[in-house]
Amino acid sequence: MIIPIILSGGSGTRLWPLSRKTMPKQFRSLTGTNTLIQDTASRLTSLSNVGRPLVVCGAAHVDRVIEQLGALNTVPSILIEPAAKNTAPAVASACLAAVEQDPNAIVVVLPSDHVLGDVAEFARMVSLATITADQGYLTTFGVIPTYPATGYGYIQPGEPIANGASRIAAFVEKPDVNTATRYLEEGFLWNAGIFVFRAADFLTELEIHSPAMYELVTTAYERSTITGNTRLLDDDSWSAIEPQSVDYAVMEPTTRGAVLPLSCGWSDIGSWATLHDLGNADEDGNVVGGQVYLSNVTNSYVRSESKPVVVLGVHDLIIVETDDSVLVMHRDCAEDIKTVTERLPDDLK
Amino acid sequence: MIIPIILSGGSGTRLWPLSRKTMPKQFRSLTGTNTLIQDTASRLTSLSNVGRPLVVCGAAHVDRVIEQLGALNTVPSILIEPAAKNTAPAVASACLAAVEQDPNAIVVVLPSDHVLGDVAEFARMVSLATITADQGYLTTFGVIPTYPATGYGYIQPGEPIANGASRIAAFVEKPDVNTATRYLEEGFLWNAGIFVFRAADFLTELEIHSPAMYELVTTAYERSTITGNTRLLDDDSWSAIEPQSVDYAVMEPTTRGAVLPLSCGWSDIGSWATLHDLGNADEDGNVVGGQVYLSNVTNSYVRSESKPVVVLGVHDLIIVETDDSVLVMHRDCAEDIKTVTERLPDDLK
Repeated sequence: MIIPIILSGGSGTRLWPLSRKTMPKQFRSLTGTNTLIQDTASRLTSLSNVGRPLVVCGAAHVDRVIEQLGALNTVPSILIEPAAKNTAPAVASACLAAVEQDPNAIVVVLPSDHVLGDVAEFARMVSLATITADQGYLTTFGVIPTYPATGYGYIQPGEPIANGASRIAAFVEKPDVNTATRYLEEGFLWNAGIFVFRAADFLTELEIHSPAMYELVTTAYERSTITGNTRLLDDDSWSAIEPQSVDYAVMEPTTRGAVLPLSCGWSDIGSWATLHDLGNADEDGNVVGGQVYLSNVTNSYVRSESKPVVVLGVHDLIIVETDDSVLVMHRDCAEDIKTVTERLPDDLK
Repeated sequence: MIIPIILSGGSGTRLWPLSRKTMPKQFRSLTGTNTLIQDTASRLTSLSNVGRPLVVCGAAHVDRVIEQLGALNTVPSILIEPAAKNTAPAVASACLAAVEQDPNAIVVVLPSDHVLGDVAEFARMVSLATITADQGYLTTFGVIPTYPATGYGYIQPGEPIANGASRIAAFVEKPDVNTATRYLEEGFLWNAGIFVFRAADFLTELEIHSPAMYELVTTAYERSTITGNTRLLDDDSWSAIEPQSVDYAVMEPTTRGAVLPLSCGWSDIGSWATLHDLGNADEDGNVVGGQVYLSNVTNSYVRSESKPVVVLGVHDLIIVETDDSVLVMHRDCAEDIKTVTERLPDDLK
């Protein structure tokens, strides 16, 4: 059985004011009519033998998850993290739930706040990855880069395995633009944080490479409180976990890692500039939404949620209006938005 | 007796979204706590022998005039224009009302939507102008230019009369910047649209130089409908008037014109860029109001009326947020705002 694990622990603060601590971007509709988490949950429905998704999220977001997936007639199983501990503990707890259902379950780990343009291609690649997973590999998707991005980590593919997958030669950190250009020439791939493996294999490797985390997650899971379809992990054990990513805790140290190249219009929508790049730009390079009036404006993203926005004689700007705030920033500053939003009152963060 | 005539017929659309057809800028507080029309009405209170102000406005604005001047314990006499006909007919009808009160009344014609920094100096200059007016001159104030403005008409002073006043050599249209620079060198003055004269003298000159207008205004006044302190001018006669400015209808053709130089921080607040220039800028050249959060922003005007505005990495921008709209524009486009606002739905214009 294939079980989707949807990670909904992120807060996406770089998409302020649309994404908030109380309303992270996965619960927003950013590129279409459905929200990002709805799109994520819909992404695997074309595959056969897919089980009910496991969603890992904080207590504050449980109701939104149930409401938004419920709108798609999907009833998820929910694991509530008492605190955010990065991805490895979240995935480990979901793997424990998956093996309970099916000891041979293959899980597909999906961040809830990414976009994928070509869903059919993605489903095809997941199918392919399940073959590699059946062979005992822990597979991560490596997105074929379309430009020398400095905002993503990269994966260097190693020795080929089969079905297009390779062993992983190295994970590398976010590069500068020159290094990124070289990475592209050398066939490195973007690390998209999407994984396919047998849940049991992940737990085995976690126990080998991060035994302390394995122990604490297992305890937190065993001592969890179940209410209907939700399971609240035990606070005491969970609090003691040292936050770590899946890459750091398992994928880098394991000898069973594999990478499968993916080309299906992926983006993590890491900033407003990314969302601008993803949009359908007019001939002046503008992407607009809502009641927007432009004159002599180029290469800008203007989004109005609640009231008319008039823009005149500006270029390369991001302008976002919501029912309780307004953002105006140069595209080139999209990564720096936290420098301002940190100064906002708590209820606006 | 000195009777202020306050002209409140302008719509100030270049200050959209704060200034609207339904709520022109004279009814807004732009630079201080009082609204511009309140400041205008307060400006002459230090003089002795000043009568109740005469306000000329459209029917849509009568309630606002009464409310805002009432807040200053001022009960104006109001003349309601059935339609906007530029300044000459408005001033003529007010002069008819003034001579009814006092055949020797000296009127001070004040646009309701200008700012004056040094009110004491202005009052002193009005006192001086009343002397020239008593000698039978129609006096206009000429603001001593502080920069080669291209947005104002200019007045060329001629032969000196007395008390600093001169005859008027010429009125000239808005110049280009080179011509404006020459005007400054040659002692030309900005035409501020502020006048001091005996009401009877103005009517005499209007009858000589624009007899058709004189006739129609007189008829509209005689046939007007009086309700308490308001007088609704007769629609039929008023509609037939050809719109003309005081300058064009009287000041240019008359031989009794005089100009008195004025230096008291005058501005017509013709655009957001002007309002930016008038504000107290911080060390980065920014003028902000309301809940505004800036990072790496220079030489910008950011005004929030209803919700937080976050601005990042931009320069030379005007950003104005009101309860029903948002404006983002480059300072250099401040004069062009109508090109966009014309496309707005009527209720937003």
